[in-house]
Amino acid sequence: MRPSTRMKAGGTMLTEVEQKSERLAVGLMSGTSADGVDVALVKIEGGGIDAILTVIAHDTLHYSPQVRSRILACQGARAGNAREVTLLDSYLGELFAHAVLHICKKAGLRTEEVDFIGSHGQTLYHHPQPEKLPGFSVTGTLQVANPAIIAERTGITVVSNFRSRDMAAGGQGAPLASYLDYVLYRHRARSRLAVNIGGITNVTSLPAGATLSGVTAFDTGPGNCLLDLAVAHYSQGKLTSDKDGAWARQGRVDEALLANLLDHPFLKQAPPKSADKDEFGRAFFEKLLAENPGKTPYDMVATLAAFTVRSLVTALMEHLLRKERYEEIIVSGGGSHNPVLMEGIRRAFPKVFVSSADDYSIPSKAKEAVLMAFLANETILGHPGNVPSATGARNPVILGCITPAPRAFQQPGDKGPPQLGVS
Amino acid sequence: MRPSTRMKAGGTMLTEVEQKSERLAVGLMSGTSADGVDVALVKIEGGGIDAILTVIAHDTLHYSPQVRSRILACQGARAGNAREVTLLDSYLGELFAHAVLHICKKAGLRTEEVDFIGSHGQTLYHHPQPEKLPGFSVTGTLQVANPAIIAERTGITVVSNFRSRDMAAGGQGAPLASYLDYVLYRHRARSRLAVNIGGITNVTSLPAGATLSGVTAFDTGPGNCLLDLAVAHYSQGKLTSDKDGAWARQGRVDEALLANLLDHPFLKQAPPKSADKDEFGRAFFEKLLAENPGKTPYDMVATLAAFTVRSLVTALMEHLLRKERYEEIIVSGGGSHNPVLMEGIRRAFPKVFVSSADDYSIPSKAKEAVLMAFLANETILGHPGNVPSATGARNPVILGCITPAPRAFQQPGDKGPPQLGVS
Repeated sequence: MRPSTRMKAGGTMLTEVEQKSERLAVGLMSGTSADGVDVALVKIEGGGIDAILTVIAHDTLHYSPQVRSRILACQGARAGNAREVTLLDSYLGELFAHAVLHICKKAGLRTEEVDFIGSHGQTLYHHPQPEKLPGFSVTGTLQVANPAIIAERTGITVVSNFRSRDMAAGGQGAPLASYLDYVLYRHRARSRLAVNIGGITNVTSLPAGATLSGVTAFDTGPGNCLLDLAVAHYSQGKLTSDKDGAWARQGRVDEALLANLLDHPFLKQAPPKSADKDEFGRAFFEKLLAENPGKTPYDMVATLAAFTVRSLVTALMEHLLRKERYEEIIVSGGGSHNPVLMEGIRRAFPKVFVSSADDYSIPSKAKEAVLMAFLANETILGHPGNVPSATGARNPVILGCITPAPRAFQQPGDKGPPQLGVS
Repeated sequence: MRPSTRMKAGGTMLTEVEQKSERLAVGLMSGTSADGVDVALVKIEGGGIDAILTVIAHDTLHYSPQVRSRILACQGARAGNAREVTLLDSYLGELFAHAVLHICKKAGLRTEEVDFIGSHGQTLYHHPQPEKLPGFSVTGTLQVANPAIIAERTGITVVSNFRSRDMAAGGQGAPLASYLDYVLYRHRARSRLAVNIGGITNVTSLPAGATLSGVTAFDTGPGNCLLDLAVAHYSQGKLTSDKDGAWARQGRVDEALLANLLDHPFLKQAPPKSADKDEFGRAFFEKLLAENPGKTPYDMVATLAAFTVRSLVTALMEHLLRKERYEEIIVSGGGSHNPVLMEGIRRAFPKVFVSSADDYSIPSKAKEAVLMAFLANETILGHPGNVPSATGARNPVILGCITPAPRAFQQPGDKGPPQLGVS
């Protein structure tokens, strides 16, 4: 009975996808700030460093306040429990699947036309520092949004859990963006820095003419995380971010407080390093509030914006610009749309051309989701997806795990694609 | 640079494994009782219902008391947190990898000769009842033992997380054993029942000449879980199980208490049903102790053994034997080595031949680990691995996710397989 229901699947199906010269992929990302799901539908020609990526459609599906607080309640060292983590894993699997169906509809494509999905999931905990347990030192990372649910609802093969394998090979599991930065922004004759200001800020160095192993990358410190927390706090949850830097612009930077902030131990660590959201998270912000009761909202936000800029600028100076001249800084992430942050960076480096990822082929807002599609493509092709010089891994490794979803696998009695929300 | 380091991997590698007529696989299982890792090295010829399985070596690596209590602390609804779950996931990944290296050494095989690993992981939480959340009802299950770590330490491709996909398709994610029971024990002319007494007891019905979709399966109630808890409690942790039924044999069954136990709501549910360890877990046992303070250890264990037997017997009578005559019951799992349980079953069904899995090709102790190797083989071949008539799923699905580990992927400077415990 079984043999007759056998369809293209397993190795055979993946080989078919692998042998195509052009693949359609969906990338899914939900950042540590837990705002929503970034989804991008991407055409990928080829693979490896010569991959050509074209964004066909992208969008962000925002979480409702209830969903967001459910995520935040499970995020961090002592948060969540086995039950909450399990249910959130399934629930976000449903939402991620919904985002895939949404972007296909938006682009006017059938899900059958998509070759695979790359899903980052939602990080609940990230622990890159070795922890001594009996017999083994371990590191670990936890991303949820169950790939089996995404595969089952969409009928599309899913590649997920990208960070674990790099960490198994001794890496920090971050930043993952360096490989894509290399593909998108490397230049034969110009040295460039790719900076992403998400919740956390990270940088990828792309020296002129470098090979992939000449690339370094690390987290520089806070991105928008503290700014978002401050605006949400002062607006009592009405606002979630300092749109266009409006608050920061009206405030004055408290230089004493800023110096104090810049004393943070993370900023003193040598790269490669990756920041847990905890390092610049809610607890950090609440302590800051308690210690600075008289601060006006605008001044606090201005000081935090300066903290983001100054920690970035110092890290670039100390670890990169001392060794090499860079002609250009390409900024992506939510922070690239905050003129106060962009002006701060421009002022610090008057001789460097500071551009936005939007000036290049991939829209800044879609970049992290595109990264997931790109990394999934590498996994399907059997290419390693980490950059050891960026993550600190001992060796290149194939990232992620593959949840196969041969769309041809339909029983005679089936009535088309499964419905959402039925379980 | 990347293209030159490209090796057989992704689809191509999986296709090579798929096209072999005979594969070597390692199966890994850690049951809900969290005693240790069962590992089996299995030769699999072909696949599907005609697969031929031969156990080459098997063993159980027991957890130290510290590791066991770490697991138990993360197990169940309100247990663990994001940090503990993440670190346990990595730590068990190391231990599972160690078990693979151990069984290869024991069998005198190099890891390079193994085609893939099927790993169940350690269940921390299993929630098959739909839970209403905004927009979606979700079920969920959480198994840990990070496959990326197993793949990285062994250099062998890992298939893991078998239960999620069945649940995504509306199933209970359990029992998974029914497919293998069908492969091993089906008979053209004899109707058989395959009973596994692990922590929980489950049954697979194999009517004479049935197709796979004629198979039903469900959990009948407790297996050894309560017996183990009782013996550990009364021996103050010195013993972990009632070896050879020695305690039960010396005690007297309290019929009033037994009747009370048999009133458990799980036993009244109609199949398909799967029991969470919570249903007959520590809390249940502690309540039982508190309500029966005068009970002697032997009487309590005798009564709990009778509870295991009677709940099984009643379930078989009500749901299976009323509809069909069965000639044989094949018992596997730890309970098959407990003569008190076996005698109890024999006494209840004097006309049925009660045998042990040890009388068949797969040793009872290795069966669950062999199941994982078998299911991984089905995933690699692109076969569905669930039995909808057993789990309640809407449709057959390919189970698990594949973490590829092309063993050929070694950088020029590499010095053989990675070391254990380095991270």
